[in-house]
Amino acid sequence: MTVRDKIRQLGIELPPPPAPVGAYVPVVRAGGLIYTSGQLPTVGGRMIVEGKVPTDVPLRAAQAAAAQAALNALAAVEAELGSLDDILRIVRVNVFVNSSAGFTDQAGVANGASEMLMQIFGDCGRHTRCAVGAAELPLNSPVELDLIVEV
Amino acid sequence: MTVRDKIRQLGIELPPPPAPVGAYVPVVRAGGLIYTSGQLPTVGGRMIVEGKVPTDVPLRAAQAAAAQAALNALAAVEAELGSLDDILRIVRVNVFVNSSAGFTDQAGVANGASEMLMQIFGDCGRHTRCAVGAAELPLNSPVELDLIVEV
Amino acid sequence: MTVRDKIRQLGIELPPPPAPVGAYVPVVRAGGLIYTSGQLPTVGGRMIVEGKVPTDVPLRAAQAAAAQAALNALAAVEAELGSLDDILRIVRVNVFVNSSAGFTDQAGVANGASEMLMQIFGDCGRHTRCAVGAAELPLNSPVELDLIVEV
Repeated sequence: MTVRDKIRQLGIELPPPPAPVGAYVPVVRAGGLIYTSGQLPTVGGRMIVEGKVPTDVPLRAAQAAAAQAALNALAAVEAELGSLDDILRIVRVNVFVNSSAGFTDQAGVANGASEMLMQIFGDCGRHTRCAVGAAELPLNSPVELDLIVEV
Repeated sequence: MTVRDKIRQLGIELPPPPAPVGAYVPVVRAGGLIYTSGQLPTVGGRMIVEGKVPTDVPLRAAQAAAAQAALNALAAVEAELGSLDDILRIVRVNVFVNSSAGFTDQAGVANGASEMLMQIFGDCGRHTRCAVGAAELPLNSPVELDLIVEV
Repeated sequence: MTVRDKIRQLGIELPPPPAPVGAYVPVVRAGGLIYTSGQLPTVGGRMIVEGKVPTDVPLRAAQAAAAQAALNALAAVEAELGSLDDILRIVRVNVFVNSSAGFTDQAGVANGASEMLMQIFGDCGRHTRCAVGAAELPLNSPVELDLIVEV
């Protein structure tokens, strides 16, 4: 089963790769690693949700936003590689959460992306992670997420 | 002298590797590098200190927390490698400090980890670093720290 | 044309490599990558501007600060390599912006560094990027920036 098949089986829609919102590129390959730029929870170039977690964006919606940002990162990787089947391992997931004062469940938000990646990639999806509370994020996004993957 | 011997000589206790607090793994090896997940200042699964620096956690305690998070990261690396003697170089230390408004000595907090790493590893412990003020951190931790090491 | 020639042609002055502000080193080479430590907008060891964006530091000044931090990172890489001509690719730029409440144009600030890197390095300067709003930064800096470059 290809990764694309698995994504379809899970009922997930992989978006087209999003355009960068600044003077950078979506992915760079260096040696055996692909770095993605920080991704936001956009669909078709529009944010699906905005604001701070949990004041503006409840935990469940923030988890969905993290998953969407991860899908955008995967779409960027697929555009570079041609196929997600060339991914050997998800090495790293960095998640910044636009946090309301006193919110300390950044790990819970990041789980929205992490659990999806493990569903899609199985053992190859078991990654290291940092989850950190940001003061503000671009476009008032609730989350920003980037990947390092081994190919 | 092994790294374990050196740690003992310095009077430092290396903890058992901490369990992740979310849907991720403590370390991933990719090529010649090991990435650790973001580590918190826990001992036996419990935070040794919580809150913002310096309002809740004074500088000295925050430095000790950064050192403890670094030890947890080393414990995770040792669990993966079998021995800390296989570390060629500490390449990178990222330190996020849960900062009170107006606190600008993130570098001072991070030194608590950096100086210990250089004591333990000598020249191999000389690393690059980012120290940044976070708005909030998981479990209300005063610091979160991750490593990239070359093996 | 060397990278040094190109920098001169652009009317940019590459500073001497700045000294670290803590217990770490400016760059580490691991495999084919060079990691730089987080750089601040200093010239001759002094911050050229301080405070939060945009309350204390307007967008244009913050963009200039991001460019200066990037130049400091390049100076550190040159000190390690001997020549910037050995850079194959700017792989990654991480930019933390000391953000006033409600400021969401971290990407605009980071463009100050990104556009300069692409002017200097052309296609080799096309990089991935994360731009995140920090709560506070070392020495009250408006930006902190680090690079990963392939050599």
